Amino acid sequence: MFHHSSKLQYNVRVDKPDPQFAKFLQQAIGGVEGEIRVAMQYFFQAMGARGDDKYRDMLMMTATEELSHIEFLGHAVALNLEGAPLTVQEEAAKDPVVNAIMGGANPRHILSSGLSAMPVNSNGVPFDMSHVYATGNLAADMMANVTAESGGRVLASRLYNMTDDTGMKDMLSFLIARDTMHQQQWLAVIEELGGWEAAMPIPNSTPQEHEATEHSYYFLNTSLDEPTPEGRWTSGPSFDGRSEFSKRDKPDPLGQKPSLGKARPHSGTQTEQQK
Amino acid sequence: MFHHSSKLQYNVRVDKPDPQFAKFLQQAIGGVEGEIRVAMQYFFQAMGARGDDKYRDMLMMTATEELSHIEFLGHAVALNLEGAPLTVQEEAAKDPVVNAIMGGANPRHILSSGLSAMPVNSNGVPFDMSHVYATGNLAADMMANVTAESGGRVLASRLYNMTDDTGMKDMLSFLIARDTMHQQQWLAVIEELGGWEAAMPIPNSTPQEHEATEHSYYFLNTSLDEPTPEGRWTSGPSFDGRSEFSKRDKPDPLGQKPSLGKARPHSGTQTEQQK
Amino acid sequence: MFHHSSKLQYNVRVDKPDPQFAKFLQQAIGGVEGEIRVAMQYFFQAMGARGDDKYRDMLMMTATEELSHIEFLGHAVALNLEGAPLTVQEEAAKDPVVNAIMGGANPRHILSSGLSAMPVNSNGVPFDMSHVYATGNLAADMMANVTAESGGRVLASRLYNMTDDTGMKDMLSFLIARDTMHQQQWLAVIEELGGWEAAMPIPNSTPQEHEATEHSYYFLNTSLDEPTPEGRWTSGPSFDGRSEFSKRDKPDPLGQKPSLGKARPHSGTQTEQQK
Amino acid sequence: MFHHSSKLQYNVRVDKPDPQFAKFLQQAIGGVEGEIRVAMQYFFQAMGARGDDKYRDMLMMTATEELSHIEFLGHAVALNLEGAPLTVQEEAAKDPVVNAIMGGANPRHILSSGLSAMPVNSNGVPFDMSHVYATGNLAADMMANVTAESGGRVLASRLYNMTDDTGMKDMLSFLIARDTMHQQQWLAVIEELGGWEAAMPIPNSTPQEHEATEHSYYFLNTSLDEPTPEGRWTSGPSFDGRSEFSKRDKPDPLGQKPSLGKARPHSGTQTEQQK
Amino acid sequence: MFHHSSKLQYNVRVDKPDPQFAKFLQQAIGGVEGEIRVAMQYFFQAMGARGDDKYRDMLMMTATEELSHIEFLGHAVALNLEGAPLTVQEEAAKDPVVNAIMGGANPRHILSSGLSAMPVNSNGVPFDMSHVYATGNLAADMMANVTAESGGRVLASRLYNMTDDTGMKDMLSFLIARDTMHQQQWLAVIEELGGWEAAMPIPNSTPQEHEATEHSYYFLNTSLDEPTPEGRWTSGPSFDGRSEFSKRDKPDPLGQKPSLGKARPHSGTQTEQQK
Amino acid sequence: MFHHSSKLQYNVRVDKPDPQFAKFLQQAIGGVEGEIRVAMQYFFQAMGARGDDKYRDMLMMTATEELSHIEFLGHAVALNLEGAPLTVQEEAAKDPVVNAIMGGANPRHILSSGLSAMPVNSNGVPFDMSHVYATGNLAADMMANVTAESGGRVLASRLYNMTDDTGMKDMLSFLIARDTMHQQQWLAVIEELGGWEAAMPIPNSTPQEHEATEHSYYFLNTSLDEPTPEGRWTSGPSFDGRSEFSKRDKPDPLGQKPSLGKARPHSGTQTEQQK
Repeated sequence: MFHHSSKLQYNVRVDKPDPQFAKFLQQAIGGVEGEIRVAMQYFFQAMGARGDDKYRDMLMMTATEELSHIEFLGHAVALNLEGAPLTVQEEAAKDPVVNAIMGGANPRHILSSGLSAMPVNSNGVPFDMSHVYATGNLAADMMANVTAESGGRVLASRLYNMTDDTGMKDMLSFLIARDTMHQQQWLAVIEELGGWEAAMPIPNSTPQEHEATEHSYYFLNTSLDEPTPEGRWTSGPSFDGRSEFSKRDKPDPLGQKPSLGKARPHSGTQTEQQK
Repeated sequence: MFHHSSKLQYNVRVDKPDPQFAKFLQQAIGGVEGEIRVAMQYFFQAMGARGDDKYRDMLMMTATEELSHIEFLGHAVALNLEGAPLTVQEEAAKDPVVNAIMGGANPRHILSSGLSAMPVNSNGVPFDMSHVYATGNLAADMMANVTAESGGRVLASRLYNMTDDTGMKDMLSFLIARDTMHQQQWLAVIEELGGWEAAMPIPNSTPQEHEATEHSYYFLNTSLDEPTPEGRWTSGPSFDGRSEFSKRDKPDPLGQKPSLGKARPHSGTQTEQQK
Repeated sequence: MFHHSSKLQYNVRVDKPDPQFAKFLQQAIGGVEGEIRVAMQYFFQAMGARGDDKYRDMLMMTATEELSHIEFLGHAVALNLEGAPLTVQEEAAKDPVVNAIMGGANPRHILSSGLSAMPVNSNGVPFDMSHVYATGNLAADMMANVTAESGGRVLASRLYNMTDDTGMKDMLSFLIARDTMHQQQWLAVIEELGGWEAAMPIPNSTPQEHEATEHSYYFLNTSLDEPTPEGRWTSGPSFDGRSEFSKRDKPDPLGQKPSLGKARPHSGTQTEQQK
Repeated sequence: MFHHSSKLQYNVRVDKPDPQFAKFLQQAIGGVEGEIRVAMQYFFQAMGARGDDKYRDMLMMTATEELSHIEFLGHAVALNLEGAPLTVQEEAAKDPVVNAIMGGANPRHILSSGLSAMPVNSNGVPFDMSHVYATGNLAADMMANVTAESGGRVLASRLYNMTDDTGMKDMLSFLIARDTMHQQQWLAVIEELGGWEAAMPIPNSTPQEHEATEHSYYFLNTSLDEPTPEGRWTSGPSFDGRSEFSKRDKPDPLGQKPSLGKARPHSGTQTEQQK
Repeated sequence: MFHHSSKLQYNVRVDKPDPQFAKFLQQAIGGVEGEIRVAMQYFFQAMGARGDDKYRDMLMMTATEELSHIEFLGHAVALNLEGAPLTVQEEAAKDPVVNAIMGGANPRHILSSGLSAMPVNSNGVPFDMSHVYATGNLAADMMANVTAESGGRVLASRLYNMTDDTGMKDMLSFLIARDTMHQQQWLAVIEELGGWEAAMPIPNSTPQEHEATEHSYYFLNTSLDEPTPEGRWTSGPSFDGRSEFSKRDKPDPLGQKPSLGKARPHSGTQTEQQK
Repeated sequence: MFHHSSKLQYNVRVDKPDPQFAKFLQQAIGGVEGEIRVAMQYFFQAMGARGDDKYRDMLMMTATEELSHIEFLGHAVALNLEGAPLTVQEEAAKDPVVNAIMGGANPRHILSSGLSAMPVNSNGVPFDMSHVYATGNLAADMMANVTAESGGRVLASRLYNMTDDTGMKDMLSFLIARDTMHQQQWLAVIEELGGWEAAMPIPNSTPQEHEATEHSYYFLNTSLDEPTPEGRWTSGPSFDGRSEFSKRDKPDPLGQKPSLGKARPHSGTQTEQQK
């Protein structure tokens, strides 16, 4: 069950409201790299977690933290929208600089939300829940989480560069820090479960006889004119300890030339396709 | 530039066409765990790759391979739809068993595509390109790719269990194998770049002074009644070699109680909100 | 800031797991009538609330409650999926009754989530955040909330009828009850603010001179052959106390016949459109 | 059956074309607060209306009116786009003021629609029909309609402030007026059906024994540190006349600590989750 | 301006209600081949039509007809849902045949719409307005319309085969007929404008010097092992009368090998990408 | 099976990088008129092609070419983003002209993709695969393809006008040329199959007795005050050679006034709807 306390997890201060930066910040709320995504992803993973309950607990705890991130970011967006012109008669609206800034602002912050945050990204596209990755497989979910936190920290770092408001930089430095921890936290689960060798290939429970293992360890070069890029993936032991990497430079198709033959009557096709 | 040869990358054989399994297979084409996603993800990552061109080449080669996976899966869907009833007059349509199967089939395989594959998932929801994760950051992109291949192999393993058609099992065993390789291949890039210690936190180019590092290495317990789940993430050195993990059991809010005060005139709010 | 405690807000018991009912329940999680919607709607309304802070607090408290509803519904979905066949070899899968049930199940509950809840509706369509209605206008938001809770209680009542599992009926009777309260709670805000007469038209802050009031109080009959349906909306005082209702039976267009004339050169049109 | 006459329902005049305002106006066409939404919502509600046919008629009549609103708004968008620069060679395009305006314009008005209206909102996001709320329950539908018209009038009021074109202000004053009527019209249906006491809780046909009425009339405070906001919702008779409001300050969870136990074999999970 | 009359454009009769066929029919309402699409497409094309007003009129007239098609199809869906089981206690619900049918039905027809039509396709995916193709170019729009009507008639023909209800067959035969006319009607506009030779290439107003005409008339064979399929497109005069068709069997890339070099500092990439 | 060679299909040169034009170019990648759409549309049509395999081959060859178009356009976007300001400290960012340009840029090109192409349109809306039209009917598919290429050439022509960069104009002139060929190529298939008379109505395999042919050849005027626009569609032989065109000026509804009567018990409606 969820509870709430009245103070924000982190302090939000905006020294110089900036409607364009409000639009940028939306990416951290409603973007695929944003906080709604991780809050909901960890929440649904927790609800579906099978096995040792400690991972379920861990997921729910961090899901709860991410809800608090949405909250302070939402406040930051609203504070950045303070003072945005609401009518063309306002002095501000006649200022060409303001005008240029407003050209880069999200009009729905004025028209739809009344100067507050929305669950959309910096293009105004609403977040959709298909980005909540929760497979029921603990290792696959951990990878999805490291991905989300990596994208999140890349985004926060870029936002940090795009403002010179010290309040906003302070808030973003906190987000950058928490994303550092969260990246590591999910990787730590993999390590606890025996590391890559034990965890891979994901899922590690797939019986070997379900796999055409003769195709499991070569890098396939599909280029007609480029040599195979050599690296850790073309030689040496595989990470799961089961084989050696190799490469295949000239891919020969292993299948047939496909053809579906004639169309059947009553199939809604042209008559010519049926004969 | 892309080229095509006429044979499939892998052989497709369907011994006993099954419209319901055709619907299931769609998840591997147009699902978030599917082949359109990885093909397009690696393609866009390749086009945006900066730094050593060998990673760009590697990404483009595997993007090209994934296009070939779409192709043979598309053929598998069409073959599973052979013989599906097109009219209620057909004998097959009167058979209760067929009826039960068709109840679980995707009606658009008959109504919209004329018995062939569509770029949708197993619920008939079209794939949308917001799932193409490409950040420009090589390590973040590699994580996204391991995620995609993990989800892909989980899916292929589950599909393998849901059919007893030997042709389909053979095809899926090939997919399972290639997903094994692709998971490892992207992790190998991380290893080449120095491993986790060098790569993390992602992005590793964010200056330390942009980060509130006092918040970077503790696990935050947000539960009111559960003890902190102990593990590799609560003690020991952090993976980036910069600090030690710790935990914080009683989170004190660090911020203010937010309030936006009165609404401004002309803001489209109720009058009562303005006074 | 959010917190979590380990027990569910309400007890979840499933006496007879039913994968088809798991699919139905998804409507209450990820449907437009569902709990993700209200949780996020109240949350974003709270973050944008201007005026008396007590409404902000009230919104945040109920947002938090709705998060707890997602949680117990998610558990209910997972429990309904216990025992669903994971392979075609399982005995269950050969049973025609099971087969019929599975035909009506969501295949992604097996293929994608591994027998647990997803943030999708009963058609498998992911929830998208465009359904989070938050205008910054308190009265408009209250109406949106009554709407959401009305749809929610309609849905819960229909779900109640579609199961005979006593555990599920018990859980749904709790949801029905809370939706009763929440409908009333949001209407009570309108009453506190002076009732309909004071609140309407929404927004009540729009100056009268911005409104063509000669068009504000008549019902327009646009039918060529039906008489105007008479009712409270065709006569008597308007609810805002400003005028009397009337009706207009024969709508005369008040505007011009529109024409855009010729297309401009360089507009990408056909040449014929330009002369 | 629908018919059309050649003149617009209301006169459209644009004194000073403004591509940026064309973008803003799109919110009133293809936004969730816009005219496509209400036209289609009333249309689908009418088609599904059961009970007294007069509500069906009323819904269809207003649906028809809303189609006419789309039409004149579409003309207003096109007129605002007259003269927008189509080539970088045009004089206009070299003017920095024009440039600033165009930076805030929707590029698809030039690239995709050839200077005319599109069924998208002011961020260019296409309207999607999931926003057509039609439950089959008359009272729930009326609430959805008041919501839509409230959002619509808030939007029209904000648009009114964002232009100083007298033609546009005149057109918007008409929209503001019609939204006034439509808000009242749908509320009047509730009054006709006996008012809130009779209508609530929605649906009022749910048998009392399907409801855990001990949970139906208290406000739940989920905050750890805020007192319950007192108001009409914490004491006094409930609006349905069935009970008294109360409050619950310290929510005790009523349910169990959830756990799903081990994962089953063949479930595509990690082996560790299965033991 | 739009008007409505009370009778349906065509008679709707359902002899044997069938919830599964109700789901199928949804494709003709809310599918990309359906009536919402053509109604809105012709409507938006009409509003943006520049040039001879007769095409604008024609588009608006047929848009209006298509609205009437939505209306009678919506009624057909509702009639097919009459009698669908609303509770598990109903006799019907215990019947295995009913059960099988309901497994193939759309649960939202019961849970969300209360036994009536929804603006969704046969998978329950809501129609989205990105499918309204309106370019401002008359010939491009005509092609889009022939496409929509071709898909529509293919769909109606397939639906005709999937029912043996004589009422439904009668209604579908009307739809098939109107789609015949509409296909021809839009092609007739092309003929009036001088036929293909005059209309192509679309847009025919693009100056020849904007086109690399040496690449305008050859078929490009991108296959490594298939001969060029010979046909009307590989030889003979082009349809625009400007050139001769030819073929190019061995595509030589005309461009460079792309590389973006190093990443810039502050770009949120890994450090290794910047050196 | 797909292959790749390292050079682009066409040369890409950007003389003066322009982040705003990068945003515009996205329409040609991820817009409905763009290259992802045609690549995937031809690919799925090829996989579902029944009848003469030469059309399947032709479709796959051009699908492959379109993948190469995505590739060079993606490079063009990245080159246009070179030099875009990444921090507010950069000199460029202080320049008002740069500022105005950035106001019109896509912030996600900085925040999300790190200065490279994304699978989105010029509003930042991701491409979704519902726009892949593939019906299994060869003629319907050809029409869809002419439509896509017409929209594509309209777009390329408009983009050509919106830049004065000679490199970009050169690249676009190539796209314009290939779209010329592709429009013709798909029409040529219709001609090969006997031309319009043989191909129409699509599908030409629908038995005449499934069609209410008395409604197949008249233009329906649904306007109350406009005369029927006369043209090739109101008289003369129909294109399929089966009949003569006519017109119907006064549409009489052919159907009943619809009514659904009372709602059933347990349907989740208001009690008043049930009596």
